[in-house]
Amino acid sequence: MRLAPQAELRPGRRVSGVVPAPTPADDPASRLFATRKLSLELIRPLSAEDMTVQAMPDASPTKWHLAHVTWFFETFVLKPHLPGYRLFDETFNYCFNSYYESQGERHPRPARGLLTRPSAGRVLDYRAHVDEELERLVRCGLEPDGEPARLVEIGINHEQQHQELLLTDILALFAANPLRPAYRPRSRTADIGTAGSRSSDEVAWIDHPGGVFEVGHDGRGFAWDNEAPRHEVLVQPFRNADRLVTNGEWLAFMADGGYRTASLWLADGWATVSREGWQSPLYWENRDGDWHMMTLEGLMPVEPEAPVCHVSYFEADAFARWAGQRLPTEFEWEIAAFGLAVTGNTLGTHALRSRPAARSVPDAPRQMFGDVWEWTQSAYLPYPGYRPPEGAIGEYNGKFMVSQQVLRGACCVTPDGHSRATYRNFFYPHQRWQFAGVRLAAEAV
Amino acid sequence: MRLAPQAELRPGRRVSGVVPAPTPADDPASRLFATRKLSLELIRPLSAEDMTVQAMPDASPTKWHLAHVTWFFETFVLKPHLPGYRLFDETFNYCFNSYYESQGERHPRPARGLLTRPSAGRVLDYRAHVDEELERLVRCGLEPDGEPARLVEIGINHEQQHQELLLTDILALFAANPLRPAYRPRSRTADIGTAGSRSSDEVAWIDHPGGVFEVGHDGRGFAWDNEAPRHEVLVQPFRNADRLVTNGEWLAFMADGGYRTASLWLADGWATVSREGWQSPLYWENRDGDWHMMTLEGLMPVEPEAPVCHVSYFEADAFARWAGQRLPTEFEWEIAAFGLAVTGNTLGTHALRSRPAARSVPDAPRQMFGDVWEWTQSAYLPYPGYRPPEGAIGEYNGKFMVSQQVLRGACCVTPDGHSRATYRNFFYPHQRWQFAGVRLAAEAV
Amino acid sequence: MRLAPQAELRPGRRVSGVVPAPTPADDPASRLFATRKLSLELIRPLSAEDMTVQAMPDASPTKWHLAHVTWFFETFVLKPHLPGYRLFDETFNYCFNSYYESQGERHPRPARGLLTRPSAGRVLDYRAHVDEELERLVRCGLEPDGEPARLVEIGINHEQQHQELLLTDILALFAANPLRPAYRPRSRTADIGTAGSRSSDEVAWIDHPGGVFEVGHDGRGFAWDNEAPRHEVLVQPFRNADRLVTNGEWLAFMADGGYRTASLWLADGWATVSREGWQSPLYWENRDGDWHMMTLEGLMPVEPEAPVCHVSYFEADAFARWAGQRLPTEFEWEIAAFGLAVTGNTLGTHALRSRPAARSVPDAPRQMFGDVWEWTQSAYLPYPGYRPPEGAIGEYNGKFMVSQQVLRGACCVTPDGHSRATYRNFFYPHQRWQFAGVRLAAEAV
Amino acid sequence: MRLAPQAELRPGRRVSGVVPAPTPADDPASRLFATRKLSLELIRPLSAEDMTVQAMPDASPTKWHLAHVTWFFETFVLKPHLPGYRLFDETFNYCFNSYYESQGERHPRPARGLLTRPSAGRVLDYRAHVDEELERLVRCGLEPDGEPARLVEIGINHEQQHQELLLTDILALFAANPLRPAYRPRSRTADIGTAGSRSSDEVAWIDHPGGVFEVGHDGRGFAWDNEAPRHEVLVQPFRNADRLVTNGEWLAFMADGGYRTASLWLADGWATVSREGWQSPLYWENRDGDWHMMTLEGLMPVEPEAPVCHVSYFEADAFARWAGQRLPTEFEWEIAAFGLAVTGNTLGTHALRSRPAARSVPDAPRQMFGDVWEWTQSAYLPYPGYRPPEGAIGEYNGKFMVSQQVLRGACCVTPDGHSRATYRNFFYPHQRWQFAGVRLAAEAV
Repeated sequence: MRLAPQAELRPGRRVSGVVPAPTPADDPASRLFATRKLSLELIRPLSAEDMTVQAMPDASPTKWHLAHVTWFFETFVLKPHLPGYRLFDETFNYCFNSYYESQGERHPRPARGLLTRPSAGRVLDYRAHVDEELERLVRCGLEPDGEPARLVEIGINHEQQHQELLLTDILALFAANPLRPAYRPRSRTADIGTAGSRSSDEVAWIDHPGGVFEVGHDGRGFAWDNEAPRHEVLVQPFRNADRLVTNGEWLAFMADGGYRTASLWLADGWATVSREGWQSPLYWENRDGDWHMMTLEGLMPVEPEAPVCHVSYFEADAFARWAGQRLPTEFEWEIAAFGLAVTGNTLGTHALRSRPAARSVPDAPRQMFGDVWEWTQSAYLPYPGYRPPEGAIGEYNGKFMVSQQVLRGACCVTPDGHSRATYRNFFYPHQRWQFAGVRLAAEAV
Repeated sequence: MRLAPQAELRPGRRVSGVVPAPTPADDPASRLFATRKLSLELIRPLSAEDMTVQAMPDASPTKWHLAHVTWFFETFVLKPHLPGYRLFDETFNYCFNSYYESQGERHPRPARGLLTRPSAGRVLDYRAHVDEELERLVRCGLEPDGEPARLVEIGINHEQQHQELLLTDILALFAANPLRPAYRPRSRTADIGTAGSRSSDEVAWIDHPGGVFEVGHDGRGFAWDNEAPRHEVLVQPFRNADRLVTNGEWLAFMADGGYRTASLWLADGWATVSREGWQSPLYWENRDGDWHMMTLEGLMPVEPEAPVCHVSYFEADAFARWAGQRLPTEFEWEIAAFGLAVTGNTLGTHALRSRPAARSVPDAPRQMFGDVWEWTQSAYLPYPGYRPPEGAIGEYNGKFMVSQQVLRGACCVTPDGHSRATYRNFFYPHQRWQFAGVRLAAEAV
Repeated sequence: MRLAPQAELRPGRRVSGVVPAPTPADDPASRLFATRKLSLELIRPLSAEDMTVQAMPDASPTKWHLAHVTWFFETFVLKPHLPGYRLFDETFNYCFNSYYESQGERHPRPARGLLTRPSAGRVLDYRAHVDEELERLVRCGLEPDGEPARLVEIGINHEQQHQELLLTDILALFAANPLRPAYRPRSRTADIGTAGSRSSDEVAWIDHPGGVFEVGHDGRGFAWDNEAPRHEVLVQPFRNADRLVTNGEWLAFMADGGYRTASLWLADGWATVSREGWQSPLYWENRDGDWHMMTLEGLMPVEPEAPVCHVSYFEADAFARWAGQRLPTEFEWEIAAFGLAVTGNTLGTHALRSRPAARSVPDAPRQMFGDVWEWTQSAYLPYPGYRPPEGAIGEYNGKFMVSQQVLRGACCVTPDGHSRATYRNFFYPHQRWQFAGVRLAAEAV
Repeated sequence: MRLAPQAELRPGRRVSGVVPAPTPADDPASRLFATRKLSLELIRPLSAEDMTVQAMPDASPTKWHLAHVTWFFETFVLKPHLPGYRLFDETFNYCFNSYYESQGERHPRPARGLLTRPSAGRVLDYRAHVDEELERLVRCGLEPDGEPARLVEIGINHEQQHQELLLTDILALFAANPLRPAYRPRSRTADIGTAGSRSSDEVAWIDHPGGVFEVGHDGRGFAWDNEAPRHEVLVQPFRNADRLVTNGEWLAFMADGGYRTASLWLADGWATVSREGWQSPLYWENRDGDWHMMTLEGLMPVEPEAPVCHVSYFEADAFARWAGQRLPTEFEWEIAAFGLAVTGNTLGTHALRSRPAARSVPDAPRQMFGDVWEWTQSAYLPYPGYRPPEGAIGEYNGKFMVSQQVLRGACCVTPDGHSRATYRNFFYPHQRWQFAGVRLAAEAV
């Protein structure tokens, strides 16, 4: 973990939005094209075949991600706001609409992997076409507060989300391949975890007195609709762990029969464990007595000091119960993150083997961003007064507000500049293919 | 209607109009045996056949309900606390344990309806045996604050819950029967809804200023573990409807294409509507152009002024969106219920055809108890500091705290004395066989 | 019991060991009322609860069987042929039609167990009513070759089929009950298997030279449509086992890894074994190292010398392959049965614990009738020139002629008088709840 | 459809094996490499993406077909019979074994489409490697009757089967693509159906007197194990249609409510129609009132005079019942084909738009080969005395002998030289993605 340079904590300082990273540059056009370019960098290790196949219904093919984010710019930015824009291909609206009911019929989600046509090459042509037209739009000038600028900003953030999903889904695909291919070469391990951490790194508990706090986005910088309205919450005193749960701790949970002890589990969780035969996190496999895990760098031994990853909410909750603790609520997490610099990460440069760095500031929690998404005890629900935006864009976040749990933070494949303390990620409690892990919390003592 | 014991009437206290029922008396032993007796009264209209069959996996057979609540007393009260108690039948622990992992293996839930043996007669013998032994225990004297007394109290409330489920499940069974049999004869309709309501009864909106409130049970009288700890919440200003949504309003929703308009629905809800082909509330059927609904009194025409019932959370949420409103949170509901008398209902005496009574006190919401459970926007989660009780009893509520929504209030088949403002009922968002309906809320204007 | 017409092999030849039952006399009316009465005898050990529940979708409730066969007489005999007949209850056509599309909508098969109403009592009233009316019809005189007489004959045979199913389905129900209740008391075992068989009873192989044979029913006496037309088949020389495969032999198959050896199984069979986790015949359970099986007399130790029962076609076929043999074709079976007396059995008098009786005639195969249905290698297909009867009755057998295998013989719960050498029973290859076992065959040597 | 040049029918001529097509030449080595080369020609229109994806669990990806047939040669020919052969890649046995339990664990069938690695390029390298080694083997000389020659012959036929499946599965993939891509350009239609047929081409019925016939392969030329042993069957007199059922006739069936009339269907078929909502053959779609069908040449209008294709056994059987006829048995079909020349077809040159050609010989049935596989009334069962070959190869055909129906003939994507009168194809009665159609038969009049 590393702190962004500007993170000299000042008393009372609150950073609730995006901490400006050194790059990409701040102006929207630069960020737009840097983001568009990053997507193309991400696919460099992939063949057209890799980009076409859908690992499972929850996942999408790389090619689909690439085309869908492009369709988003075409549909919501270019078509309504660039005079004379001509659709690249009339059929793409059907192929690459995700779930916008307002945009008409679409290809069924579980069948996205059947689209061997349009080819990867044609999708790259589509991207080039849309990029050119976006440049034309930008050259015309984007009013900073105008609708096109707002939609470009949404488009950037939307593409960033799919960049993360693209890597998440590629891992799912490669993990299902008996060859266990690596997305990228194994990084050198020599420089990992040297920043002052010890092998016997005990959890430190950070106390919070509770009180009434403002949570949610304050309107400075970009945020999704579901982070608003900013509002007050009353939080009881609590404490939270200064670091994530590690693989070593998870191995202890497993060794103690964690996956076989009904009393540790939510009823739905126990039913899932029993039905699916879970015995470890997703992507773990025992080879000749040693636990390995599938990663973007291929199959690797499980490192005891790395944060555990690819666990469901059910598992996170059971682990916490086993440990005599609980998961934090999303507001406890957000409060604990007040004033913390958002540590970035560059996609593809680390692979979840970070050891908790030493704290540069006493009592600051570590690993809040850039390692794993952290399951919270909070269900994904609207904030008081929440209204989805008008129009098609409004289908974005609100319609998923049931049966899912909030995750906070950011993970090792979250693009730089896409993390913030108010960010609300959400998944179903049984899902494990995301880079999701666990931080413990507890009542104040 | 009857006042809960602790309901010392204070000025401003409001009561919505039904006469107090004669019993049960206050002392635990009386309440115990009155409760035990009520279960037997409830089954009077049923044959042994009716009592044996399981309508669907979510439901349980009447006979199973009768035996399970008895097993609860035997296992948790008599066995540990009555010296010399002998089990009625060694095999019943396997047959009638519901989900207490700590009590060993048990008959699978979806197969409860296969238990044609033990017979209904033998289950009644079991009840008689346990009742006798409970009397022996009571004669020995129950220390008011002792463990046996506490467990008897839990047993009473547990049996009351199953009394409600028993009727709920019988309705499911009879609704699946092509003869559409009635559980009880049709009540006279002459005396329904005459208390001052008008056919064109407009919703009145009751404003609440918001603020910090104590919610949760205060420890006086019985409550489930999930109602505690009492704690403070901060609630934004809001308004809520003074009455329930009616069948007539639901018919308007249907006529306006409510079940066919994707934009009104949560994504999971829309998927469910599409997959299941929902076009109306559960138990509704259109016969020659007229909507009827299956009730405990048989198939009846849908009454426009009665509260809508047997809708899922998905439907409740979609209706609210269609109406331009939202559902209340569980705390908004609880605050709105502060100081309201709990209006009771006697099981079997009314059948959801109540029209909203006139308010006896201005600005008091009507129909808060005794008509339908009210879906709230709140997910079913632990209160801050919640700990399940130690021991087997602790498996009761905590392990269901994921993926479900809270319902508040009480319904027309909730036993008298089992309703209170802090009560938290919970079901999955797709479930419809409960007596669940809708009250609207909105942001303050 | 009756001899197949062509069986004038040897005068007075009989019969492998059971005394002739008092028998229903030959005249149709006597047989009709004897059959109707037998159904009522069969239910004597059952409670109304037992009679109402459906063990699984393939099975039907006792009550439903009782009512359905009665509906058959009402619908196809009384309604069209008894002037002035009035339906007992208009709703019963919906409730108790099985699958006659021509008779209109009907209650879905997997939901037959939800019919707690009409009650068992009312179904018995229905039977009494129909019996009275049948007597009225009979008193009017049944032309021997008239349509009513033909339909009465079909009705008798139809009811006999359901008598067998009734017991088969009750066993399925009781086997799913953790109390493992017995349908009838355990019969004395002293008189079992004393007719000359030895514990080390080796299989004898009976050689058949092959040739062209007439198979199928010759039209004398009752037969189902699927047994006709009688036609010639050309059969290669073959040999078949003179007795059934025993439990002891099955235990050897199990001990030799039969259920774990893919190469023994048909591909569909292996998929089923793997998915369902089969490790033994249905209803077998290992208690403390000893194999037991659930029977109509309750749970009993597996008797090594009794014929194996409750195995699927997949298992029968795998066993034969393991044994280096094969199953017979249906025509091999029929040819082997030429001239054999049909040994009867009285429902409820024996429970599959028969040891092969000694042959009364050299080279006659034993256990051809009255022990277990015998899986054949033949798919259930129409005979050349087969046409289903005209009218509703024609829906009886033809529409099942795909994907099923033929079983020949008769089993220990087949009613007396319902067995014959040309009888074609049929079930899907994965089904096990029937009383089905195995006889081996092989090519001639 | 075209006649092979040597098909001047001579009295008594029997063509029971492979009719030598002009190419490939007769010697095994030439045929081996011609076959290997044809596979590469077939994939020319396909991208690596097209070759990777699996349309549905029943289908396989092109790449998998290419690799699997190569694995077959490697595993059964080269590894045991070419001294010094080294496996191309140790991991391929796991990846490309289909279902040979004896060859060890294998990648699950429904997940074949997840194998983006090995890449299509690497699979082509695999093919080149194996081809080189096969050439080395051949250069060493193949004893005509030796085991390697026998296995090479099997390998050729095995690859031919997969060539057909490859095209069948590509059609399934392209039919699921909203762009409805064409595998090959649309052939000129000008020369279609000019060979003497008329628009109002009536079915002629060809009478067969019945008798005892030899069926099954006579051992001259290659055949699969399931075509043996040759044996006698007794066949009743019958008649069969001289041509296939056409799309036009199928449209009449549809217009007459064929898909909505329960009485026409086998029970399993009706359940399938109801559950799946079938209203036409697979790949048909109604666009603005006109029926189109997806073909290897893209979406095309349904041609009334072309044979109907992509129907299940259930549909074929229902159609026959509607037409007052029945399907032929497999032996009736084989007898009708006696003496017929096997008309070949060149993969990729026609697309099922053939109109029945005029008969070159009176009373010869038309369209017996090269248009569509023809469903027969016969279940797929072993011939008398059938034994699967020893060894792994023996897993080929025998283990599928249950629950499937035999299809006879050959279809428009069957490779030249792979058709013969004794060929037994087999599929489940619900399957439709094969090129399967209908010929009617009837009892003799």
